[in-house]
Amino acid sequence: MASGSQEMTAGVTTILFMRYVVIMAGGAGTRLWPLSRQGTPKQLLKLIGGVSLLRLAFERALRLVPAERVIVVTGAAYLDEVRADLPEIPPGNLLGEPEGRDSLNAVAWPAAVLSYRDPDAVVAHLTADQLIEPIDAFVEALDEAFAVAESDAGALVTLGVVPTSAHTGYGYLHRGEALEGFPTACAVTEFKEKPDAATASRYLGSGQYWWNAGMFVWRAHTFLDQLAVLDPATHAAVLFLAAHPEALPEVFPTLRKTSVDFAVMEPVSHGRGPGHVVAVALRVGWRDVGGYASLVEVLGADGDGNVVDGLAVLNDAHGNLVISTVPGHLLSLAGVSGMVVVHTPDATLVTTLADTEGIKSLVGQVAAAAGTRYV
Amino acid sequence: MASGSQEMTAGVTTILFMRYVVIMAGGAGTRLWPLSRQGTPKQLLKLIGGVSLLRLAFERALRLVPAERVIVVTGAAYLDEVRADLPEIPPGNLLGEPEGRDSLNAVAWPAAVLSYRDPDAVVAHLTADQLIEPIDAFVEALDEAFAVAESDAGALVTLGVVPTSAHTGYGYLHRGEALEGFPTACAVTEFKEKPDAATASRYLGSGQYWWNAGMFVWRAHTFLDQLAVLDPATHAAVLFLAAHPEALPEVFPTLRKTSVDFAVMEPVSHGRGPGHVVAVALRVGWRDVGGYASLVEVLGADGDGNVVDGLAVLNDAHGNLVISTVPGHLLSLAGVSGMVVVHTPDATLVTTLADTEGIKSLVGQVAAAAGTRYV
Repeated sequence: MASGSQEMTAGVTTILFMRYVVIMAGGAGTRLWPLSRQGTPKQLLKLIGGVSLLRLAFERALRLVPAERVIVVTGAAYLDEVRADLPEIPPGNLLGEPEGRDSLNAVAWPAAVLSYRDPDAVVAHLTADQLIEPIDAFVEALDEAFAVAESDAGALVTLGVVPTSAHTGYGYLHRGEALEGFPTACAVTEFKEKPDAATASRYLGSGQYWWNAGMFVWRAHTFLDQLAVLDPATHAAVLFLAAHPEALPEVFPTLRKTSVDFAVMEPVSHGRGPGHVVAVALRVGWRDVGGYASLVEVLGADGDGNVVDGLAVLNDAHGNLVISTVPGHLLSLAGVSGMVVVHTPDATLVTTLADTEGIKSLVGQVAAAAGTRYV
Repeated sequence: MASGSQEMTAGVTTILFMRYVVIMAGGAGTRLWPLSRQGTPKQLLKLIGGVSLLRLAFERALRLVPAERVIVVTGAAYLDEVRADLPEIPPGNLLGEPEGRDSLNAVAWPAAVLSYRDPDAVVAHLTADQLIEPIDAFVEALDEAFAVAESDAGALVTLGVVPTSAHTGYGYLHRGEALEGFPTACAVTEFKEKPDAATASRYLGSGQYWWNAGMFVWRAHTFLDQLAVLDPATHAAVLFLAAHPEALPEVFPTLRKTSVDFAVMEPVSHGRGPGHVVAVALRVGWRDVGGYASLVEVLGADGDGNVVDGLAVLNDAHGNLVISTVPGHLLSLAGVSGMVVVHTPDATLVTTLADTEGIKSLVGQVAAAAGTRYV
């Protein structure tokens, strides 16, 4: 369904919904340093066959709505790069955050902007951090989520990935009663933080839990109405910003820095708020490209288990990720396994695939010891 | 003793010996790639406080003879760099091999050149691959070796390092009877290849073995006389080259490629040849800078066991060798230990300190896969 417009009859009133997609592309992506920098977050890196994760997310969005109804919310510093990567999007649809204020504002601000432009907007807030396949299954789930939001004025729809493993790196949704008339939609009774291995295993075995995809679909004004009850200050601020974009640099940095799950979804799932949370199943391969370990899975290894991008020679080396971004510069590995070696013009990283979490503290140390120009 | 000239009486004939030092600085030093290249062998790398191993060897030689009597034999391609590193040496004392033909020719050709210039030359052939301390002990041993060679027309004197460990990386000399009138000189009954650990341990315990230093002292004509018997073709060729240096490019590449131990020292120690092999004790710290593992020992590690040269940030990293030769380029390591990371403008090496032997095959692979300009 290329256009989401839909006609519904509620008594004598006819409401014409218009579907929109907001792609969230903020975040510095420290875990892919030195490829990702403060000036180039991971969603803009052309990691997968020369295409960025943002571009892939945009092409998924085009299966739902035309380019004119795709909004990208990103850091103000990345706007030029986003414009170059997605030339099809009207400039007015690129929203640049003066600074990162966590997911609540990356959701609430675009929702307010769209609601201001179109009071009947139904909005899918989608992430750009994953490889999602097959796209048909993604489109099917989003169509169901849009339909739920359009039919139910109280619904905050969240996408739940049907888990394929007892993953400890994702939050989980506890599923409640099924919604009549929809293939997969059901109530959400609880949001669960990232579990330990035993808990994740129990979740998987029970069949009652889905991974929290961090993607949402709702009528914009439904979400804003919930926000008005749960966080009136943020609600007032984002409505003000929608009408007065020139105030962004002063107002945005004052917004409460918190997650949309914490501020809205969890309280609503516990009955605090006028609406209710609904989950729709996303039956897709869900590969988070959060760090180098996941990049190995995504890119696929050669016969020796190595993933190599750029000029490199490996000798007696197995299960390594080797990326050289400098033409003509040779990376050479001998007798090593499970390593990450990433070479950029001004910085080279050597770490292990098992320890890619250590990059966060490394990057902090780099900024302090070598200077912020390296991060 | 700054000059080695010495007067000896043999019947009615007075022989005036003149001492010379030949520094052998050939070899590509593959095991220090990518620091060392075909154009820059390891002896020319300014590894130790900005000073090259060649320069250190030259400064040791100056304790034995004046600069005018120091000869350097190296690859023809390195002559300019050697000249820049050792401006004190007369240009005629720099001998450039058109190609490497192993140690026999690196010894025999300079011996022939010196014998042609000075029939009474007594020559110390010294290596430039080691850090040797204290220098006084080195000078003392060389003085004894010169004295043995000057007193005994049949002696091929080889330097034996008194072992401090059951090292398996060196060949050994089996000591025979002591020579009267000298503090440490003794016959050599056998040359032993690099032993396994058990054999090395037995050698060390017996007190009968010294490390083969690969350094020699003899009257040039004594060595050449032995060579004439054991390898007449090489003997004829090097005498011809001494008189006809213009023939070097055609003749040198045809020389038999073999080691001086195999061609001369071992046969003479077994009685095949007119003379005999004598060893003199070198009681010094003997640190071979053959590869990265030895470089760690030589340079000395910080509190985390890391050796760092250049701009680098290490996080949770222990026992690594990290060298960056490109100003402003940052090397960053996280969660790794026992690694070698060496960054040069056109090539970066990542390997382990335990596996630095693997560099040899890596370099071969680099030449084949990425091009000879990288080696």
